[in-house]
Amino acid sequence: MAAAAVADKRPVRFGILGCANIARKVSRAIILSPNSTVVAVGSRSLAKAEAFAKENGFPGSARAYGSYDAVIDDPDVDAVYIPLPTSLHRRWAALAAEKKKHVLLEKPVALNVAELDEILAACRVNGVQYMDATMWMHHPRTAAITAALSDHRRFGKLKAVHSIFSYNNGPDFLKNDIRVKPDLDALGALGDTGWYCIRAILWASDYNLPTKATALPNVEFNEAGVILSCGASLQFSDGKITTFYCSFLTNLTMEINLLGTDGYIRLHDFVIPFQEYKAPFYVHANTKFGERAISIEPEPVEHIVSTDLPQEALMVKEFSNLVQKIEREGGEPEKKWEIISRKTQLVVDAVKASVDKGFVAVEVGE
Amino acid sequence: MAAAAVADKRPVRFGILGCANIARKVSRAIILSPNSTVVAVGSRSLAKAEAFAKENGFPGSARAYGSYDAVIDDPDVDAVYIPLPTSLHRRWAALAAEKKKHVLLEKPVALNVAELDEILAACRVNGVQYMDATMWMHHPRTAAITAALSDHRRFGKLKAVHSIFSYNNGPDFLKNDIRVKPDLDALGALGDTGWYCIRAILWASDYNLPTKATALPNVEFNEAGVILSCGASLQFSDGKITTFYCSFLTNLTMEINLLGTDGYIRLHDFVIPFQEYKAPFYVHANTKFGERAISIEPEPVEHIVSTDLPQEALMVKEFSNLVQKIEREGGEPEKKWEIISRKTQLVVDAVKASVDKGFVAVEVGE
Repeated sequence: MAAAAVADKRPVRFGILGCANIARKVSRAIILSPNSTVVAVGSRSLAKAEAFAKENGFPGSARAYGSYDAVIDDPDVDAVYIPLPTSLHRRWAALAAEKKKHVLLEKPVALNVAELDEILAACRVNGVQYMDATMWMHHPRTAAITAALSDHRRFGKLKAVHSIFSYNNGPDFLKNDIRVKPDLDALGALGDTGWYCIRAILWASDYNLPTKATALPNVEFNEAGVILSCGASLQFSDGKITTFYCSFLTNLTMEINLLGTDGYIRLHDFVIPFQEYKAPFYVHANTKFGERAISIEPEPVEHIVSTDLPQEALMVKEFSNLVQKIEREGGEPEKKWEIISRKTQLVVDAVKASVDKGFVAVEVGE
Repeated sequence: MAAAAVADKRPVRFGILGCANIARKVSRAIILSPNSTVVAVGSRSLAKAEAFAKENGFPGSARAYGSYDAVIDDPDVDAVYIPLPTSLHRRWAALAAEKKKHVLLEKPVALNVAELDEILAACRVNGVQYMDATMWMHHPRTAAITAALSDHRRFGKLKAVHSIFSYNNGPDFLKNDIRVKPDLDALGALGDTGWYCIRAILWASDYNLPTKATALPNVEFNEAGVILSCGASLQFSDGKITTFYCSFLTNLTMEINLLGTDGYIRLHDFVIPFQEYKAPFYVHANTKFGERAISIEPEPVEHIVSTDLPQEALMVKEFSNLVQKIEREGGEPEKKWEIISRKTQLVVDAVKASVDKGFVAVEVGE
């Protein structure tokens, strides 16, 4: 019965704005997702769009366009995935929403919360679903850790979080990538990698906002003033101590340390698991000094969480589920994702302001 | 020839001041160490000292005393191990040095650097060896990681360090332990657990001092004003970003994250290994996004370092080696350990000052 109902649903038809590298990964995810299909891609260069569709296994019926407008004007497109440079998000996400396309938006979602609010308002007015493309949120490991953190009898109360996301893509990236260009991705490493660290801290905190953010000294910038590496501490009213480090200048590292009164949980590949179909996390539970403090007991335990689809396909599947509810069942857009996205942006903005103001504590907006 | 020379040496004869819990571990370490023996223990209670000697496998010839003075007056004692409350260190370490006893001093070594300087001056004037009892420094794993960090071709340059040491010994500890009493161990969790985190950051930084220390907000104190948990960032002139968290209120956790331009090294039991005779660390080397950023390559590698003696016995062995050089070869005391100890204390002091001043950046003294 339930299976038949699902089978009755037409898959959500995606159009993709631009041929960014990350769009290759998400195209595959759309194709892998059982309730989704890709029907169009647009680029400023038609040849590029055509090559992209061909190289990424698009169905034969899919259309390649020489503009973004053509994608959002296509009546067969239900939803768009927008992996454009951040400075173009406000314009194209809002335009897509006005054309009644649901919006899956690559992160960082906007240059600041004012821009994001324009996007969210356009989605709200037009009744379309919004979600940011923070893939690790959708891995079943994430839910498993949420459950472990919520088991207060075992984990106790969360008291400290540290997160790292960094990568070192080499000199060509640092010279030419859009993520280091002030007119394209002005938030640099804070927007691209800090986004994940901040999301991790918010996630661990039941999405309660910190009261203040304070950037740590020793931020590194490129010649154009774009952040290449920084750290910050986020201050919470419940007394938690949280810190993160994000960078384009250090080895690809993806760390969350979650410290509770009675347990410690860590994971070392939170953004993209080393393996696609299974992902570990490590639990130190009720760790104590042994006799004469000679050893520590018990040893940490590895938990491995398997998934039948890669996390990015689960993201697309979840997004399309929500779209299907709206389109064919007359439901309301799910607000959860815009709320989380906006909170993340608020913290990004506060850290950026703290950097700009010389590392003073900056109140996080609302 | 070398073996015969070693065999000729009389083992270093230790006296122990006080019957602290940690002294049980170090007594065992002295007995395990091939160049060391324990000959005396003193307590304010003779019965307690006698019971301690018996319960900890002291040789039959060892003496139990009803005072600390008796230990440092004993002509058969070459060196003292001092696990007394921190507020007593200045008095007893200086007195021991004046009696020409070498000093192995439990950490935190002093309430502040001024007190430590008195101890170090007494050691220097009397030509005795000084070492603080930071056991993990002596595990061969520590040297193995030092070598890995120094391999700049593989690891690149160190850019960020995060360290955690915390434990949760429960309500009785928080009410009654000397480590939470303002008249005994006024530095609380900062002195007892932060000491290790600060040492870890200094160790990773080739013992270069940070320029400034800034405590993070949300320090927790007990009713007497002793720190139960805190975090801080240490600012280095080379641009490194370093942070730590130390606590008596969270699960026993012992973490160092070392992030370089081309590698990432982590260990999860740096203070006391889960296992006595082998200790792991994990190396992420030249980690990169795989094809289409679907996976991350290569996976981290576990390195296991074995040891023939527990780290605390290696500490005693190293200390006694230095003592033997002085006593029987007329050498000078090794300065390395006092230099490292003093730098650690300088940073502890700066973090404490930052807490007291409301989380402002405080210059680290010299």
